[in-house]
Amino acid sequence: MQEPAPDQHPAITGAVELLLGSGGKRLRPALVFLSARLCGADPDVALFAAAGVEMLHTATLVHDDLIDGSLMRRGAETLNARWSPAATVLTGDYLFARAAYWVARTENTRLVQRFAETLMVICNGEIRQMFDGRGKVPSFQEYEQRIYAKTASLIALSAESGAILAHTDEATIAAMRTYGERLGLAFQVVDDVLDFVADERTLGKPVGSDLRQGLVTLPVMLFLEQSGDHPALHRILHQGSSDPTVQEAVRAIAASPAIERSLQIARDYIREAKEALQPFPPSEYRAALLDLADFVVRRQF
Amino acid sequence: MQEPAPDQHPAITGAVELLLGSGGKRLRPALVFLSARLCGADPDVALFAAAGVEMLHTATLVHDDLIDGSLMRRGAETLNARWSPAATVLTGDYLFARAAYWVARTENTRLVQRFAETLMVICNGEIRQMFDGRGKVPSFQEYEQRIYAKTASLIALSAESGAILAHTDEATIAAMRTYGERLGLAFQVVDDVLDFVADERTLGKPVGSDLRQGLVTLPVMLFLEQSGDHPALHRILHQGSSDPTVQEAVRAIAASPAIERSLQIARDYIREAKEALQPFPPSEYRAALLDLADFVVRRQF
Repeated sequence: MQEPAPDQHPAITGAVELLLGSGGKRLRPALVFLSARLCGADPDVALFAAAGVEMLHTATLVHDDLIDGSLMRRGAETLNARWSPAATVLTGDYLFARAAYWVARTENTRLVQRFAETLMVICNGEIRQMFDGRGKVPSFQEYEQRIYAKTASLIALSAESGAILAHTDEATIAAMRTYGERLGLAFQVVDDVLDFVADERTLGKPVGSDLRQGLVTLPVMLFLEQSGDHPALHRILHQGSSDPTVQEAVRAIAASPAIERSLQIARDYIREAKEALQPFPPSEYRAALLDLADFVVRRQF
Repeated sequence: MQEPAPDQHPAITGAVELLLGSGGKRLRPALVFLSARLCGADPDVALFAAAGVEMLHTATLVHDDLIDGSLMRRGAETLNARWSPAATVLTGDYLFARAAYWVARTENTRLVQRFAETLMVICNGEIRQMFDGRGKVPSFQEYEQRIYAKTASLIALSAESGAILAHTDEATIAAMRTYGERLGLAFQVVDDVLDFVADERTLGKPVGSDLRQGLVTLPVMLFLEQSGDHPALHRILHQGSSDPTVQEAVRAIAASPAIERSLQIARDYIREAKEALQPFPPSEYRAALLDLADFVVRRQF
């Protein structure tokens, strides 16, 4: 899927190779393939959908890193760390186009529509976070909505893709979608936990990056619920952050019960994800999807 | 088509209203409707395609204005003049998603694929211009490739949309596409001429804006061909521009035969556009498309 498009500028080819070659977990394409196998979709067509989701995911990362000013991802420099904002914006746009191109190759208009809707949900969530989110402690419902938009919506789409391509009944599409949505919510909660407890080298980016940007995630919410207030956190949320303050807050939260309580919520999501697969008869593909769910809460990176 | 999507953030709704309400020539949706009528496509389905092209066009303008740092368009402040770069990037992304959504509503996978390919061409052209283009005098072929990517590709898509939706034979799709492509090339040449000779108030943005960014367009190319060199132009292209230098160069080019020679090239494109419509039997829709072609070279804004 990395074959260059006709007349593709060498700078883009280089960027695409860099971005897609830099590793990452490939969770979304894996979900598309497993979902396609489980539901009986043509694997050749699923390949287009898998390329589409991974490309769409990469496009959103390119713009996110630019917006957040992130310089490292997956242990490598981000595109915006090397390129001008203008070139980074355009490369992200190009990747959106490539994503749309691959999804269109499935010749399944329902899937194309679901892709477009998902990108709308993702952008809308980002804009909401930007206008409403910084330094504010969300309710649990607001937090769940935010991580749905940011992460779970695309993972849900990946999981339902196979069912849509296989033209199964609506109940099967809904079950695959629920599996993906719950998996995606768990995935983001674990991401938010890792931002406090991970080893920077394994994580491939600095810890505490959400807090540094004034973004309040589940571990912070649960920490505040238990501790009432904390001087370092208070300064970060009300007056902006300095690096020693962020490190102090990260250490306090990492050592608190808020981490285990967050992981318990992730495990609850995973239980719901697995339950959604119960209607499917046992098969190696169903087993793989169940294993994948367990991996999401056990991972260290 | 301005109905808000579910859960659309008020900031986006405001931006969409601002952008789509600010006028503009609506050339692209008009082409989709006329092409649909001429070729016998369902007008209700053409409406989705028309919304898609206009939304895609608007999305590219939002990112272009950000990249170029343009503060005025269509006589109003651009989005990036009011909003942060981050919010502007995300709003553009959201509009790409909306464009994809409307095109997907046509349930025509060929059209969706053509949309995705066109966005790839547009982004690729922008990136080429950014990496290779500033301060460089292009060959005529390079100039034509650039204005094809920038403008004619989407206008060609608009014109062929009706034929694709009507499932006509390939020759008809190709004829409509040629019409749109030639029309689009003429449209951009006229745009490039207006950047030298238009009244700023009618144009809705400052004149000389291409030159100010070191972008060499057809009038400059033809001016240099005739005059050899020019002190003000030389300074702009080799040492960067200051405002009085740009104004001096704009005046020199506006008063030169390069303007009329550029318009002659635009008229040649328009002749080719009209020839492409010859196979169609006379009808009010064919007549409207021929009139539209004449308008493109006669317009003052």
